[in-house]
Amino acid sequence: MLDTATGLQLRDSLVLLDQKLRALLRVLLDRAEKTRTLVCAARTHGQIGVPTTYGLRFAIWASEVARHIDRLSEILPRVAVGKLTGAVGTQAALGEKGMEVQETMMSFLGISPVDVANQVVPRDRYAEYIMFLAGVATTLDKIGIEIRTLQRTEIAEVEESFGKKQVGSSTMPHKRNPIKSEQVCGLARVVRAAVEPALQNNTLWDERDLTNSSCERVILPEATILTDHILQVMTRVLEGLTIHRKNVRKNLELLGGVPLAESVMVELTRRGMGRQEAHEVLRESSMKALAGGKTLASVLGGNREVTALLSSKEIEILLDPDRYIGTAPAQVDRVVARLSPLCAS
Amino acid sequence: MLDTATGLQLRDSLVLLDQKLRALLRVLLDRAEKTRTLVCAARTHGQIGVPTTYGLRFAIWASEVARHIDRLSEILPRVAVGKLTGAVGTQAALGEKGMEVQETMMSFLGISPVDVANQVVPRDRYAEYIMFLAGVATTLDKIGIEIRTLQRTEIAEVEESFGKKQVGSSTMPHKRNPIKSEQVCGLARVVRAAVEPALQNNTLWDERDLTNSSCERVILPEATILTDHILQVMTRVLEGLTIHRKNVRKNLELLGGVPLAESVMVELTRRGMGRQEAHEVLRESSMKALAGGKTLASVLGGNREVTALLSSKEIEILLDPDRYIGTAPAQVDRVVARLSPLCAS
Amino acid sequence: MLDTATGLQLRDSLVLLDQKLRALLRVLLDRAEKTRTLVCAARTHGQIGVPTTYGLRFAIWASEVARHIDRLSEILPRVAVGKLTGAVGTQAALGEKGMEVQETMMSFLGISPVDVANQVVPRDRYAEYIMFLAGVATTLDKIGIEIRTLQRTEIAEVEESFGKKQVGSSTMPHKRNPIKSEQVCGLARVVRAAVEPALQNNTLWDERDLTNSSCERVILPEATILTDHILQVMTRVLEGLTIHRKNVRKNLELLGGVPLAESVMVELTRRGMGRQEAHEVLRESSMKALAGGKTLASVLGGNREVTALLSSKEIEILLDPDRYIGTAPAQVDRVVARLSPLCAS
Amino acid sequence: MLDTATGLQLRDSLVLLDQKLRALLRVLLDRAEKTRTLVCAARTHGQIGVPTTYGLRFAIWASEVARHIDRLSEILPRVAVGKLTGAVGTQAALGEKGMEVQETMMSFLGISPVDVANQVVPRDRYAEYIMFLAGVATTLDKIGIEIRTLQRTEIAEVEESFGKKQVGSSTMPHKRNPIKSEQVCGLARVVRAAVEPALQNNTLWDERDLTNSSCERVILPEATILTDHILQVMTRVLEGLTIHRKNVRKNLELLGGVPLAESVMVELTRRGMGRQEAHEVLRESSMKALAGGKTLASVLGGNREVTALLSSKEIEILLDPDRYIGTAPAQVDRVVARLSPLCAS
Repeated sequence: MLDTATGLQLRDSLVLLDQKLRALLRVLLDRAEKTRTLVCAARTHGQIGVPTTYGLRFAIWASEVARHIDRLSEILPRVAVGKLTGAVGTQAALGEKGMEVQETMMSFLGISPVDVANQVVPRDRYAEYIMFLAGVATTLDKIGIEIRTLQRTEIAEVEESFGKKQVGSSTMPHKRNPIKSEQVCGLARVVRAAVEPALQNNTLWDERDLTNSSCERVILPEATILTDHILQVMTRVLEGLTIHRKNVRKNLELLGGVPLAESVMVELTRRGMGRQEAHEVLRESSMKALAGGKTLASVLGGNREVTALLSSKEIEILLDPDRYIGTAPAQVDRVVARLSPLCAS
Repeated sequence: MLDTATGLQLRDSLVLLDQKLRALLRVLLDRAEKTRTLVCAARTHGQIGVPTTYGLRFAIWASEVARHIDRLSEILPRVAVGKLTGAVGTQAALGEKGMEVQETMMSFLGISPVDVANQVVPRDRYAEYIMFLAGVATTLDKIGIEIRTLQRTEIAEVEESFGKKQVGSSTMPHKRNPIKSEQVCGLARVVRAAVEPALQNNTLWDERDLTNSSCERVILPEATILTDHILQVMTRVLEGLTIHRKNVRKNLELLGGVPLAESVMVELTRRGMGRQEAHEVLRESSMKALAGGKTLASVLGGNREVTALLSSKEIEILLDPDRYIGTAPAQVDRVVARLSPLCAS
Repeated sequence: MLDTATGLQLRDSLVLLDQKLRALLRVLLDRAEKTRTLVCAARTHGQIGVPTTYGLRFAIWASEVARHIDRLSEILPRVAVGKLTGAVGTQAALGEKGMEVQETMMSFLGISPVDVANQVVPRDRYAEYIMFLAGVATTLDKIGIEIRTLQRTEIAEVEESFGKKQVGSSTMPHKRNPIKSEQVCGLARVVRAAVEPALQNNTLWDERDLTNSSCERVILPEATILTDHILQVMTRVLEGLTIHRKNVRKNLELLGGVPLAESVMVELTRRGMGRQEAHEVLRESSMKALAGGKTLASVLGGNREVTALLSSKEIEILLDPDRYIGTAPAQVDRVVARLSPLCAS
Repeated sequence: MLDTATGLQLRDSLVLLDQKLRALLRVLLDRAEKTRTLVCAARTHGQIGVPTTYGLRFAIWASEVARHIDRLSEILPRVAVGKLTGAVGTQAALGEKGMEVQETMMSFLGISPVDVANQVVPRDRYAEYIMFLAGVATTLDKIGIEIRTLQRTEIAEVEESFGKKQVGSSTMPHKRNPIKSEQVCGLARVVRAAVEPALQNNTLWDERDLTNSSCERVILPEATILTDHILQVMTRVLEGLTIHRKNVRKNLELLGGVPLAESVMVELTRRGMGRQEAHEVLRESSMKALAGGKTLASVLGGNREVTALLSSKEIEILLDPDRYIGTAPAQVDRVVARLSPLCAS
């Protein structure tokens, strides 16, 4: 009976988590739409590379959250189950109609019956639930890390909304600490930590032992409540997130167009320069630009091999980050179109 | 490109694991069918209680393995994906038709394209794969623990098949060590341990960092190969498992019918004895039987309150474990009927 | 300041845990002393082998608990530390005497100062504390598993003390469920799960981030309280543990002396039989004994090759488990002598 | 015998790891000494705050590595043990002098004997070894994260040494990817993952089961080799790390002295201004400076309340980060003096 009650609780938890995942998805899609062409520096290995857009970033997160919604719908019927199988699974005390009784009762409760069980519901089901939570928490952890990064003083592209009464530091009033994202990252560790005990709880002895009991009293509510909490916190963080467009632009232009060298190189080759030569020209010019604190455009403008093939207007266009974002806006549109039905507001 | 190759490998791995899960399911259903009425002692808290059947035990494992097959089919399209999104996800170097090119190429490779991605495929997908493996490994761990338990000298109901050349111990030729099940339990720990790193690999910085790379080179092949291995080992163990029916019976009768007291109690109540009184009668009689090394039937046969309501033949029938297995055979039949299509041989 | 308070709490926790480890050690040494020659079946791979003693078993656990006491004394000065290093570790606001001020204040508080720190005490220290708890919890888990095993109906050598009001099962009054040991095993999983978050909390960014904070609010008290709790529970379980000597003897003799074949084999070799031959004689005789439900002594007594070299009295002595426990009692005595000073009552 | 061999291997591993920890410590102390007064921006929550020094940062890491050296010396005698206790721990086949034989043999091998054991060395010892490795790996993980952060394009204070043949990216020759630190962070996850299996390996059944065997064959060599590897990689990274002092300075001055507001505030109070008032003056001036892109000094220089108490020279001195590093150099010196004996080159 205890397990049936747990099945009901897990069903209710999943229904609530589903709502909150959809709310988060809604926020991410909104932000993706509004920033579909907000060009910004992309970073790989922490190094600024070719541009991307904030819209794509939000769309990638939205897509991941949508996968969690899919997962939830798949695990729900496996997780939210009850049983009426008696002391060891045989329904010996229930009479001949045991299976029908179980079916009827679970149907009344609105959850599925197990097909078979011993004294307890097999714990692969609950482990699956906890692994689902761990996956969700880790997505939030990743988003939290990104916000904390983009809010770093030297980058300063985004900022968590800041309560009016909140003080960053009494002696350092300028500080804008991303404390909500930090909280999310910290608690995600606790949620993930429930996975291993949840799996071990599936290795019960014989028709059941009691080791799962004390363990589940801690990890089931804890992992559920913390996931629910950080889902809400992160949704609010993303909803209220300020994007400092000036700083976005500053970082985008930080390297004077050098990250876009690829764009010019490809065009030079098209216009007849040897691939090897084009590569070398761009490499040297890039180094020169970085060393001298100049833009790549100005260095290329002084290179005769280049100017023989490209006008300065053409160079400028090739190095314009706003024109080098490929299908990012179209990809965002497709994600928004596909996923909006999941979270119609 | 590397991630697309990984997508292909994971697809192939899942196809192989699917076959092996179905082979394991086949063995479990076969054993369940053949032991559908093999009555045995059930144990909760390590204590012998009312009877169950080997068939139900195998059916419960079969049902769990079938759930893994379901899970596999759900995660496959999410895990086996490729991408052609360029350096940071924008397809900037691919021209306007980037999305179509990606679609075509992945269709050619037989895997799904990501909808959006940055430089890498989001790692929630691979974490899901590893968590799936951990779930499978833990089921095998549980089965291994049960076999090792049932093979204990004092229980001795089952025995791993024993190679002709295999020697348990040079000085103790009688030993039948369940070393294959032990191996499965040990390696399941390693598979489970891959979950946390796999989740952490999803927390990549910005458009990607490289921390996942070194980690995945270890955990992806290791967790895959070990799961595949222990799946095979456990399938062979179950296939070759000897069941010592004499010992099964011995354990079933070990407590002289005391575990079935419930059966008599219910009947006494039906025939008019007060519930409280019936409970007390059975409690006392059970204690007497255990203390004196007698069967519960013989003690009850000497109790006038009981014999006033039940003949000794009736008592015998009520305490017959073979008649106290409820719907276990029917439940087994239903599981076999439902799951056999998944593993038609 | 918060970290200094944590340092004080951890010191107090370790002092309490130290007392409880010593109380547990006291119980284990007492039991070891009292059972130093209580011969019982040893089991490897779950199979009964040559004999051991309960005394040795308790002494092995005592030795492990004593190692935890050693570990505690080693980590205490590293874990119980405080700091007064200002906002980022430089003591800039403390004036020139910062280091002395810190020293004095910590000396007043009775904990060590850090040598250096940034805004926070480095978390390798707290991770070490949690790993210590995980080690202790795992020892208790192991003992719990052993008690649950030895209390199995078919083995029934030990029994958790049983509160007068406690009812194993309303319908199965004979059941003696080892629920306290089960609780210990279940909660040990939760304690172990704190290790990974505790380690991750050491990877703080720069001079500190806040991710550790939310995480530690959960794991530090939880892991501490649960370890403390299961230490007490297991101490009480061991203190009140009933050993059913009759059953111990029954299991010891379960295989009719076969596990002691080694003893006869060695003696036969000493008296001139070829090693190969002796091995074969014993193998065959063991198999015969097991198959026929006879004692090995009776089978050997009917073997002329054997009786040519050994009298039946000699065979009996060689197969007497009480004489085949080697230095076990001496080893127990040594452990008791060495470790008693750690827990003088 | 297998466990004794493992004891010898673990001893050798620890000897090698000890050397490598000391080599890493040497590098950290060298760097700390050379940068004892290299003032830089400290960051908490990713936000620039009051200054610190690179020397203090290196000293904090050195202190942590020294703690690992201490830990290693403490666990070595517990981990590097052997045994000669026979099949189940009683030394029954060894004769009366079993304990002396064991002592002599282990002394010959140069490792300690266990005091007591059953068929195997208790696994709390090996778990302790793995937890030690996990602690070391996590320290390296933390250092790796910091280097990757400080090497971010927008921060650019440090740079991993860059092999001449190494190319960051064919199309982005300017990229300086911290791939060695990234590798360290990724592999640290694998090392940490060995902790839980290592602990579970301590929960062997009875006098031993075999589950530890398959598990240890994977995790013992893997965790050892990976820790050894990342120790070496990180030592080389730190040895060859370039510090871009120009960028260090640029970040230090990025906020125009605002992070040092505290310094002026304290002095204004000393000279008679009310604490509350001083706080408000600094808060407003800081905001004005940040909003207008001015230095705090220039804003304060235009504030009569301030200039009534402080000359512009005094303001300049109070806002000089080089004068606001408290005891950092002295703390570094103390650490270097204390720890140098551990790694005399």
